[in-house]
Amino acid sequence: MPPEQSNGFPPDLLIGIDRSARRGLRAQLEAGLRGAIQEGRLATGTLLPPTRVLAGDLGVARSVVVEAYGQLAAEGYLSARQGSGTRVREVAHARSRPRRAARADPGPVVARFVSGVPDPATFPRRSWGRHYRAVLDSTPDPQFSYPDPQGARELRRALAGYLGRVRGVVADPSRLLVCAGFAQALAVTCRVLRARGVERLGIEDPCFGFHREMVLNAGLEAVPIPVDDDGLRVGELRFADVGAVFVSPAHSYPLGAVLSPARRVELVAWARERDAFVIEDDYDAEFRYDRTPVGALQGLAPERVLYGGSTSKTLSPLLRLGWLAAPAELIDELRREKFLDDMASGLFEQLALARFVESGDLARHLRRVRPLYRRRRDTLVAALARWLPEARPRGVAAGLHLYVELPEGVGEAALAHAARERGVHIEEASWHWADRRPPLPGAILGYASLSEGAIERGVEALGAAYAAL
Amino acid sequence: MPPEQSNGFPPDLLIGIDRSARRGLRAQLEAGLRGAIQEGRLATGTLLPPTRVLAGDLGVARSVVVEAYGQLAAEGYLSARQGSGTRVREVAHARSRPRRAARADPGPVVARFVSGVPDPATFPRRSWGRHYRAVLDSTPDPQFSYPDPQGARELRRALAGYLGRVRGVVADPSRLLVCAGFAQALAVTCRVLRARGVERLGIEDPCFGFHREMVLNAGLEAVPIPVDDDGLRVGELRFADVGAVFVSPAHSYPLGAVLSPARRVELVAWARERDAFVIEDDYDAEFRYDRTPVGALQGLAPERVLYGGSTSKTLSPLLRLGWLAAPAELIDELRREKFLDDMASGLFEQLALARFVESGDLARHLRRVRPLYRRRRDTLVAALARWLPEARPRGVAAGLHLYVELPEGVGEAALAHAARERGVHIEEASWHWADRRPPLPGAILGYASLSEGAIERGVEALGAAYAAL
Repeated sequence: MPPEQSNGFPPDLLIGIDRSARRGLRAQLEAGLRGAIQEGRLATGTLLPPTRVLAGDLGVARSVVVEAYGQLAAEGYLSARQGSGTRVREVAHARSRPRRAARADPGPVVARFVSGVPDPATFPRRSWGRHYRAVLDSTPDPQFSYPDPQGARELRRALAGYLGRVRGVVADPSRLLVCAGFAQALAVTCRVLRARGVERLGIEDPCFGFHREMVLNAGLEAVPIPVDDDGLRVGELRFADVGAVFVSPAHSYPLGAVLSPARRVELVAWARERDAFVIEDDYDAEFRYDRTPVGALQGLAPERVLYGGSTSKTLSPLLRLGWLAAPAELIDELRREKFLDDMASGLFEQLALARFVESGDLARHLRRVRPLYRRRRDTLVAALARWLPEARPRGVAAGLHLYVELPEGVGEAALAHAARERGVHIEEASWHWADRRPPLPGAILGYASLSEGAIERGVEALGAAYAAL
Repeated sequence: MPPEQSNGFPPDLLIGIDRSARRGLRAQLEAGLRGAIQEGRLATGTLLPPTRVLAGDLGVARSVVVEAYGQLAAEGYLSARQGSGTRVREVAHARSRPRRAARADPGPVVARFVSGVPDPATFPRRSWGRHYRAVLDSTPDPQFSYPDPQGARELRRALAGYLGRVRGVVADPSRLLVCAGFAQALAVTCRVLRARGVERLGIEDPCFGFHREMVLNAGLEAVPIPVDDDGLRVGELRFADVGAVFVSPAHSYPLGAVLSPARRVELVAWARERDAFVIEDDYDAEFRYDRTPVGALQGLAPERVLYGGSTSKTLSPLLRLGWLAAPAELIDELRREKFLDDMASGLFEQLALARFVESGDLARHLRRVRPLYRRRRDTLVAALARWLPEARPRGVAAGLHLYVELPEGVGEAALAHAARERGVHIEEASWHWADRRPPLPGAILGYASLSEGAIERGVEALGAAYAAL
C-alpha cells in the first residue's frame, strides 16, 4: 500500500540535538539520522517529516535540516522526489536478513483449489463499507471505551435472532460470546474446560488439523474418534474416557459427513449422562445444496452444547468475527477467559456486522452466493466424473470443498506434486488425520473461488497428472 | 442501534412444514413460530422475514403466512408496524432472566474521573472512516483470506517507521507482531515465557491490576517489585528469582514514575546477565507535557526487551489494535502463540491503521490532542492545589491520569464513597497494589475526557467530600 501523502510526521523524533556540544547542529542531526537508518530504527521506505516541520520541532533553522537531508541523500541513505517527500532508502545494515533465493518459476497457474475460503470477488465491499460508516457516524461517545468483553449487545442481539431463525440455535444474547473468529472461541473454550479439570477432549478423526494443534496447545489431550459416513462414531465415546467432545455435526471437515439423526440423539444422551460438554463447530452451515437443512445440535441440548460459528465462510476470514452460544453454566467462565485474553473484540466491526445482519444484507448476500457456489460444485463433480472417474468425491451436498478419495495405491503427495507441475494446487488430506496416515487417502478441493472454466481446466490437468503417475 | 431496513431475512427458517401432516399449514407455521419465541430461539426484537419472502421459501401461499403472523400478533407474540416489519415482542419465557432491580438514583453526575481512556470526542471519525473506505476499495482479492498471523506487512512497515522515529524502538517489520490491543500482546508473551520454562515474572508494585490478573491466568507467578520515585527498584530483582520482568519505564501505572537513567542501565545489565527478558509496556508514551521524551528501553537492548504499545490511548481502546517489537529470538514463538489463539487480527482495520500512520494523520491527531490534555492536566493540578491541598499529586508530567496520594488517615474507600454521593467518580488505587493495602493510599484521577469546567467542579466537590469525612 503506497502512502498517499507526504507531509506531517510526528515532531518528537528521538534525534538528540545538544546545543552545548562542540559538534554543529547539522552534523549532529546527520549523525542521528544516519545511525537510525544503519541500525534499522528508521525502516526502509519511511517518510521523513518535511524539513519545515522537523526544523520547527527541533528548534533549528530550516536550512540545517535541508542540508542534513541533502547530505544523507548524497550518501545514499535517503531518496527525495519532487512532491513525494524524503524517504529512507534500502541500505544494507547489520540486522537486515538475507533475502531468500527466488524459487524456480513453477509455470503458469491453472487452478488453485483452496479450501475454507469464500470467493473474494463476492465480498460485499459496498454494503459493508456503508454499515461501517454508519457505525462511525452514530456510535455515541460513551461507547468509545473498552468494549464489553462478551461482545457488543447490538451484535449479540442480532446474532441471537439470526441463529435462532436460521440454525435453530437457542441463543439469547446473555449466553452469546463474540470472539475473534471461531478460532478464538475454541481457544477460550479449551482453556475453560482445562480450568474445570477436563484433560482429554474427543475430536473427530479426521478433523481440521489446525484445530487439533489448538487443542494440544491449550494443554488438552486430543483423543481421536473416527468419522464414517454417518459422522462421528458416537458409540466409541463410551470407551474414550473424554470429558468433552469437539464435533462438526452438520458437515465434518474434511470428509463432509453429516451426523445421522440416531447419532445426534446418542451424542446428546452421552453428554447428559456424563455431564460432559459438546463443542459444535457449525463452520459452513449456510451452504447446503441438495439436502434439507440440518438444525444445530445445540437446539437439542442447549445446556450441554457450545455452539460456534463465524463470518469466515459467509463473508471472509479476514474479518476475524466469530461467536459461541454457550450453556448458561459456562458463560461467566468463557467471558472471563476472553477478557483475560484480549479484553474484548474491536467494537466498530462488531456493530457493522450487527447492522449487516439486521438490515437483511447478510441474507441477501447469501441468496446471491449460494447459487454461484452450487454451480461450481456441480461443475467440479461433473469434471471429476469425466477426468478422474477412479476417484470418489465425498461430502458433496454442502460446503465449499470436496474430499476426493483417491484410488488405491495412489499417494496423496505424489498426486499433489504431479498436479503442481501442471499448475494445479490441491491440498493433501493427511495433515487432518490424527496419525497422518489416512485410511482414505485423499485430496481436498476447495472450489468456492474458482470460475467454472478454471475448475474444468484444473480437473482436466489433475486427471492428466493422475494418468501420468 | 435501530435496524434500518425491514425486509429480506434468510429463507432457511427452521420451521418445519410437513405437507403430509394432518394439521394445516397455517397451524404448523404458527406452532413452529410460537414455540421458537417461547423457547427464546427467536429473540425479542427479531425482525421476521416479509410474508412474501417466507411464503416463497416455504412454498406456501402468502395468505398462510399473513394469517399466521396475524394470529401470533393477536396472541401478543409479534408486533407489526406499518413500514417497519413484523418483530418478536418481549414475552416471558422459561429462560428469561429476572431483571435487576433498578438502583437508587445516585443524583446528578458532576465529573467522572475515568482513567486510561482518551477523550471520545477527539476520535478522528472522518479520517478513520476515509482510510477504512480506501482499504475496502483497494485491497486486492487475493488478500481476502486468512491474514498473516504476525500482522499485515503494510501495518508492520508503518509501525516500524513510526516506533523507530518517535520512540527510538529498534523495530524492523520482521520482529513486529500485531495483536488485539496490548492485552493480547501480554497474554501471548506470558504463554511463550511459560512454555520456555519461566515460572516467576517480576511485576511492578503497584501496576495495572488487570495485568496482574492476566499474568496469573497464564500460569505465571506474579512477583511484586516495588516502584518508587525513580521507577522500578531494579536492585530488588537480584533477590527476586524471576525469569522475566514486566515494567512501564516511561510512566508507571498508576504512580506515574519514570525509570531513572541509572536504573535503565541496571535493568538492561540484569537482563543480559541473567539471559532474562523484559516486557516494556509503553502505554501512554505519546503524552509528555513538561519533560523531555524518554526513549523506549527497548532501544538499549532490543534482544532482551519485548516492547509493547497500542492505539488505546492515542485513538480509542475500542479498536483493539496493539503491537509488540520482540527480540528476533522470540518472534517465531510469539507468532505461533498468536496463531493458535485467534489465527490473526482483522485485516481491514490493520490496513486502515497503516494508512492512518503513513499519511501523517496520527501525527496530526496527536498534535491536536496533546495541548488539550495538557490544559486539562494543568487545570486538574491547579484545582487540587486549591480544593484539596492536603493531597499530593504524583505522575503529573505525562499521561492521561494523576495519582493523588491521600493525607494520612484518609481511607480510599471512604473518600470514593463520599465523592460518589456528591456526583464525583474517582478510582480507588488499592486494586493495583499486590497486597491490596497500599503504603501510599490514593485515588486515580483520569482527566482526558473531562472539560476544564467539569474538572474544576469535580475537584471542588471532591474537596467538599474530603472536608466532610
